[in-house]
Amino acid sequence: MAVVKPTLARGTRDFGPELMAKRKYIFGILEAAFRKYGFLPLETPAMENLSTLTGKYGEEGDRLIFKILNSGDYLGEVSQDQFEAAKADGSRSFTSLVSEKALRYDLTVPFARFVAMNRGNLHFPFKRYQMQPVWRADRPQKGRYREFYQCDADVIGSTSLQHESELIALYVEAFTKLGFRDFTVRVNNRKFFAPIAQKLGLAGGEQALAVPLDKLDKVGEEAVRAELLAAGAVDKELDGFFDLLKRATEPQALDLLCTWLGDEASALARQEMQTVWQGLQALQVDVSKVRFDMTLARGLDYYTGTIVEVVTHEVAMGSIGGGGRYDNLTGIFGVDGLSGVGVSFGAERIMDVMEQLELFPASIYHACEVLVFHFSEAEMVHAASAVAALRKAGIGVEWFSEGNKLKKAFSYAEAKYIPYLAIVGEEEARQGTVALKNLAAGTQEVFTIDQLIQKFKTL
Amino acid sequence: MAVVKPTLARGTRDFGPELMAKRKYIFGILEAAFRKYGFLPLETPAMENLSTLTGKYGEEGDRLIFKILNSGDYLGEVSQDQFEAAKADGSRSFTSLVSEKALRYDLTVPFARFVAMNRGNLHFPFKRYQMQPVWRADRPQKGRYREFYQCDADVIGSTSLQHESELIALYVEAFTKLGFRDFTVRVNNRKFFAPIAQKLGLAGGEQALAVPLDKLDKVGEEAVRAELLAAGAVDKELDGFFDLLKRATEPQALDLLCTWLGDEASALARQEMQTVWQGLQALQVDVSKVRFDMTLARGLDYYTGTIVEVVTHEVAMGSIGGGGRYDNLTGIFGVDGLSGVGVSFGAERIMDVMEQLELFPASIYHACEVLVFHFSEAEMVHAASAVAALRKAGIGVEWFSEGNKLKKAFSYAEAKYIPYLAIVGEEEARQGTVALKNLAAGTQEVFTIDQLIQKFKTL
Repeated sequence: MAVVKPTLARGTRDFGPELMAKRKYIFGILEAAFRKYGFLPLETPAMENLSTLTGKYGEEGDRLIFKILNSGDYLGEVSQDQFEAAKADGSRSFTSLVSEKALRYDLTVPFARFVAMNRGNLHFPFKRYQMQPVWRADRPQKGRYREFYQCDADVIGSTSLQHESELIALYVEAFTKLGFRDFTVRVNNRKFFAPIAQKLGLAGGEQALAVPLDKLDKVGEEAVRAELLAAGAVDKELDGFFDLLKRATEPQALDLLCTWLGDEASALARQEMQTVWQGLQALQVDVSKVRFDMTLARGLDYYTGTIVEVVTHEVAMGSIGGGGRYDNLTGIFGVDGLSGVGVSFGAERIMDVMEQLELFPASIYHACEVLVFHFSEAEMVHAASAVAALRKAGIGVEWFSEGNKLKKAFSYAEAKYIPYLAIVGEEEARQGTVALKNLAAGTQEVFTIDQLIQKFKTL
Repeated sequence: MAVVKPTLARGTRDFGPELMAKRKYIFGILEAAFRKYGFLPLETPAMENLSTLTGKYGEEGDRLIFKILNSGDYLGEVSQDQFEAAKADGSRSFTSLVSEKALRYDLTVPFARFVAMNRGNLHFPFKRYQMQPVWRADRPQKGRYREFYQCDADVIGSTSLQHESELIALYVEAFTKLGFRDFTVRVNNRKFFAPIAQKLGLAGGEQALAVPLDKLDKVGEEAVRAELLAAGAVDKELDGFFDLLKRATEPQALDLLCTWLGDEASALARQEMQTVWQGLQALQVDVSKVRFDMTLARGLDYYTGTIVEVVTHEVAMGSIGGGGRYDNLTGIFGVDGLSGVGVSFGAERIMDVMEQLELFPASIYHACEVLVFHFSEAEMVHAASAVAALRKAGIGVEWFSEGNKLKKAFSYAEAKYIPYLAIVGEEEARQGTVALKNLAAGTQEVFTIDQLIQKFKTL
C-alpha cells in the first residue's frame, strides 16, 4: 500500500483532547439548560435526500450544500448529451443525475422534516434540542469552517408567548452559567415590520425592510438608507425612521416607535412585546440583560413574531446566539398551521469568546484524578490492587505502564493534567500504602488505600 | 416553493427523544468508563480526503465509501474521452475526477491519520476514546444502517501488556454497568497463529489461518477445513487441530494448545497470555467473565497480539465488542514503530440487546421533574415564581403553556414522562403553595415552594 501523507480535508478540524474538553464543557452547560427547561434531544442523519434540502437556503445556499455521489454505476443512465449539456452549464445540470443525497446544511430544515414526518406521533407543543455538526462548501477562512456545530432549541406547535419568555430566560441562564457577564439579549418583533414598511412606502413589504436593516451594523446608515430609497421608501418618512433608530437604546424606545407608527398599526406587536416582558418579570429574569431593540432585524424570511439575538460586550464578536418565532416552518413539507419559536447558540463563536476571556476551568482537562506508579515487578500486585480499589469506589485512575522511571510518570501526569501521582515502592507495598504526590503543590503524604479513597471522595 | 414529501435518506434513521434517551444512557456509561480508565476524547471530521480512506478497507470497502461530489464546476477538467471510458468501466474511473473527499468509514483510519499528523505534540502512550457516526453504502436491511455509531478506545505508543488487562477490565466493568449479566470476553493471541499455520503447513502464513477460522461460527467445521485444505494444510495435522478446537472451552485449553504446538513455538504467545491474565487477577477483575478461546480469530489483518471479542449469552446476537493489539496502524501514513491496542463497543447491537432485555431504567426518558400548571391569568405570576424558584434550585421544570384545561396538562406530562404535576389554582396562589400530583401514584399533596424544593432535592 502506498504511503499517504496524512492531511485534513480543507476547512475541517480534528478535536483533540483539549479542544474536546472545551467543547464538552460548553455543550454540557447548554444541554443541562435545555433539559432544565423541558427540551428533549433529537438527532437527524448527516445525509438527507437532496430534494429535502434544495430550494430551502436560496440559490447561494444550494450551491454550498455538499452533495454525495451515488453509489455503484452512477453514470449508467447518464447520456453523452447530458454530459455535454452539463459541461456547458458549469456542471449544474449534472448534479441531480449523479447525486440524490446531500449533507445536512443546518438543523432547521431536518427538524421541520422530522416534525412533518412524525406529526401523528408527536405530542405538541414539541420541544427539542439538537446539537450536531453541519457542513457547508464555503471558502474556508479564519473562524469559518466547512464542518461546524449548531446548537438549537425549538418549541413547535404552540402559539403561547410564554415560550418567548422562557427561551429568553434560557439564554440568560445558559450564558451566565458559561461565565459570560456582560451580554445583552436584544429583542424585537417582526410584527412591527409590515406597518413600518407601509409607513415608509416600501412596496416589497416587511422583507424589503428586514434585509437592509439586518445589515445596519455592518454597512452603516447611509447604505441602508440608499437601499430603502431604491426599494421605494419616502425620503421624509426615512428621516423620521432614522431619527428613531438613533434613539433605539433609550428606555422609552418602544413608546417612541409605537407613537411614530400610531396606536392602531403598532398595537399587535406592542401587545406581544409587553406579554413577553411580563413573562420575563414573572420568571424573575435579570431584565438588565434584555433590551428591546428596534434595529434588530434577523435576515431570514421565515420569522413572523418575536426575534432575538445575543451579543457580548466583553470582546469584539458578532452575535453569539439568535432566533425567533416562525409560523409555518413545516409548510415546505405540506404540514401547515404549526407555529414555533426557537433559539440557536453560536457554538463556534462561544468557544472563541470563552478562549479569549479564559472562561474554561482548569479542571476540565483531566480524565482521571490520579496516576498510580510502581517501581518494579515486585510492587505490581499492590499497585494494581490500589488501582482496583479506587476504581471500585468510582474514582478515575490510570496505572502507569511505561516502566520504573519516576520522571517519566511525572511528565506523563503533567501532559494529561492528572493532579495526583500515587507512588508505590518497596516500603509502600509492604505497608499497604501509597505515597501521594500533589503535583501542583509539590507536597507528598502517605495514605492507606482506604484513606486515599476517602480523600478523593471528598475532594 | 414546491411542496416536498418528507422522507429519510434510505438506510438512515432519526433519533427522536426516546431513542436518544436510550443512546445517551449507553454512551454516558461507556464514556464514564473510558474516562475512569484514563482515556480522553477525540473527534475527527466527517469528511476525509479520499486519499486518506481509499485502499484501507479492501476493494469491497472502497466501493462502500460514500464519496462527496466536488463543489463548483466539477466537470470543468473532465474530458469527453474520460466520460466515455467511465461509462465503459461501471463509473469506476470517474469518481476520482469529480470527488476528492469522502465520509468517514470507520474510526480507526482517521485515528491513525490524527496520530500520524500530531505525533510531535502527543505524549505517548496516547489514550483516546471516540464515539462518532460512520457511513457505509451497504444495502440497508434489518439492523444494518448506512449511518451508525462506533465507540472505540485505543492506547497507542506502548507495548505494555498492562493495557490488554486494563481494556479487558474496562469491558467487564462497562458491560456490567450497562446491565449485562451473562457475557464472556473471549481472549486469544495472534502470536499463536504463525506457529499454528506453520504446523498445519499453510503457505499463506497466519492470515491464511485467521480468515477461515474467523468464519467457524458461521460456516462450521467442514467448510473451514475445506478452505484450509485448499490453502495447503496437511490433512493429518488438521485432524489434530480440529480435535483441539473441540476442547477449546475446557479449562486446560491453553495447555493443550501449547503442548500441540510445542514449548518453543508457543512460548511467546503463551507468555503474553499469562501476563495479561496475571494483570487481570491483580486488577481484581471477575475472571469468570473472561475466557481464553483459541477459536477466536478476528478477520482484520492488522492484529498482531492479543485479540478480544465480547459475546452475550442472554440473547442471540453476534459479538457486541471486539479489538486487539496492532503493531503498525500508522505505517500507512509513514509513521512506523507505534504499537497500540484498542477495543470497540458495538453500539447498535448493544442497543438491540438492551431493548430485548429491557435494561433501560424508566427514569431516562424525562427531561424535567415537574410540570407547573396554572388555571387562569390571575395565577400566572405565582406559577411563574414557582417555576423560577425551582429552576434556581437546579430542578428541571416545565411551565405548561396551553391554557387552563387540567386534562391537557395531564396528557402532556404523561407523553413526556414527567413524574409530577404542580397545580396552581386560586387557593394555591393566595397561600403561596402548589398542589403536587404524583402521576404514577395518583396521590396529591400541598407544598409551599420551599417544601417543594426540598422534596425534589432529596428525591
